[in-house]
Amino acid sequence: MSETSQFVEEVHPQHFRMRYEIENVLFEGESSFQKVKVVQTKGFGKMLLNDDLVMVSERDEFIYHDMLAHVPLFVHPNPKKVLIIGGGDGGTAREVLRHSEVEKCTMVEIDEMVVEACREFIPQTSSVFTNPKLDLLIEDGVKYMKESKDLYDVILIDSTDPIGPAAPLFGKEFYQNIYSRLSDNGIVVSQGESPFYEQEMQKKLQSLVAPLFGCHSFYNFHNLTYPGGLWSFLFASKGLRPVEDLSETKVLDSKLSFQYYNVETHKASFQLPEFMKKVLF
Amino acid sequence: MSETSQFVEEVHPQHFRMRYEIENVLFEGESSFQKVKVVQTKGFGKMLLNDDLVMVSERDEFIYHDMLAHVPLFVHPNPKKVLIIGGGDGGTAREVLRHSEVEKCTMVEIDEMVVEACREFIPQTSSVFTNPKLDLLIEDGVKYMKESKDLYDVILIDSTDPIGPAAPLFGKEFYQNIYSRLSDNGIVVSQGESPFYEQEMQKKLQSLVAPLFGCHSFYNFHNLTYPGGLWSFLFASKGLRPVEDLSETKVLDSKLSFQYYNVETHKASFQLPEFMKKVLF
Repeated sequence: MSETSQFVEEVHPQHFRMRYEIENVLFEGESSFQKVKVVQTKGFGKMLLNDDLVMVSERDEFIYHDMLAHVPLFVHPNPKKVLIIGGGDGGTAREVLRHSEVEKCTMVEIDEMVVEACREFIPQTSSVFTNPKLDLLIEDGVKYMKESKDLYDVILIDSTDPIGPAAPLFGKEFYQNIYSRLSDNGIVVSQGESPFYEQEMQKKLQSLVAPLFGCHSFYNFHNLTYPGGLWSFLFASKGLRPVEDLSETKVLDSKLSFQYYNVETHKASFQLPEFMKKVLF
Repeated sequence: MSETSQFVEEVHPQHFRMRYEIENVLFEGESSFQKVKVVQTKGFGKMLLNDDLVMVSERDEFIYHDMLAHVPLFVHPNPKKVLIIGGGDGGTAREVLRHSEVEKCTMVEIDEMVVEACREFIPQTSSVFTNPKLDLLIEDGVKYMKESKDLYDVILIDSTDPIGPAAPLFGKEFYQNIYSRLSDNGIVVSQGESPFYEQEMQKKLQSLVAPLFGCHSFYNFHNLTYPGGLWSFLFASKGLRPVEDLSETKVLDSKLSFQYYNVETHKASFQLPEFMKKVLF
């Protein structure tokens, strides 16, 4: 790596930085919501950055998207209608629509610039945008949840951190609306933040979800390009349990193959280390 | 974080860098084996770097040391004699000697400078050096394994990457000697490298261990300050199985409390994601 290399640098508030070596900047723009950038990296493929934070890299996006989509879709006995709030790169929708029983996936992304940048430069995630089962809406997810009358079997909150455009997604009213829009067996999974760096945010999220839902639990996954490498989702449902109600037969019968997800990692991901159990209730 | 901040930068061959903000450099030296540095960071406590790679940070060392020591020590029914090769910071020995049935822990570290730098600047891990059950030898671990006639119940290979002083620890003869020095129920656990970045090294390690030991398996843990955040150990034994032979009663009876380890994470850590299962046999 020569000293004349170009880098994109991610600055974290907790006194460290990640620098990725890049070949060139493919897209750079500023929407009404955030700075949007797509870079061609060395070693990590293309990378989407919102407000200079890594959202997606081609090298490791399979992990996040596997664990966000397949965990609830294999627990739910018959998920026909799925809603994604956020997820502008398309990776979550791509994995959702691999499940043949899903009849319709609605995706509500606030920032058209993210969608268009990914459509042009990151087909690995965005090629799903031409799937006829996908209904892609450019709209405020909070407003959508307030006004929509549709019911969903699974809702996925594929959001950035609760700063900038995603801040209202960490609100009480938003989760009340989610509850109302879920069918009887409904499951919601939310981007659950870093167990190392964002314990307060995890407690906040838990305090929004716990009073509404019969069952809730954080689960962990690994991510190369998120700070600390350990990241989580929050699973909440009207009753379905994430480990006990997982149908192994359903996973086998789906004949889907994955790079990260399998029945064992699904179950293992809900086993939390002590320092998380001490923080969460 | 001001632009005049001081950083220590970890350069990874795979096109990225980690930069930690530091307050000052506490120690800097060059031994016969490697460059040794201890820095006071912001946010991560004190940090040991060998050849500019982060070995230990006060903030997250509990995870590595919990998972290296407690997994084999709770699987083994009665570990009395434990050997550590490497582990110069003392964190592994500290966790080993929390198990009251361990009568003697022998630690063989090649680099006296690492031991002395940690003794002076990182008491969080090195305070164990005064424990009377610890026999701390400054010696080449490969040579020790060849010449020692003692038998051990558990051997822990707490090494750096197989470059520099640790290279011979990834050799056939070394593992043959380990096998010979293990008691009938013996277990060896080795630092197992990054499942993301070092798949070839993992396969090499597995090819050394598999022909000798009746049972072997990688297991994963999270680490803030290792590249990618996902890291592994390789468990190998003459017969004891890492999940099935774990005694939950023994964990409870030990009355030990942990920040990371618990029975559930012990079991979960052996459940590997698909991309690891495809690489390993």
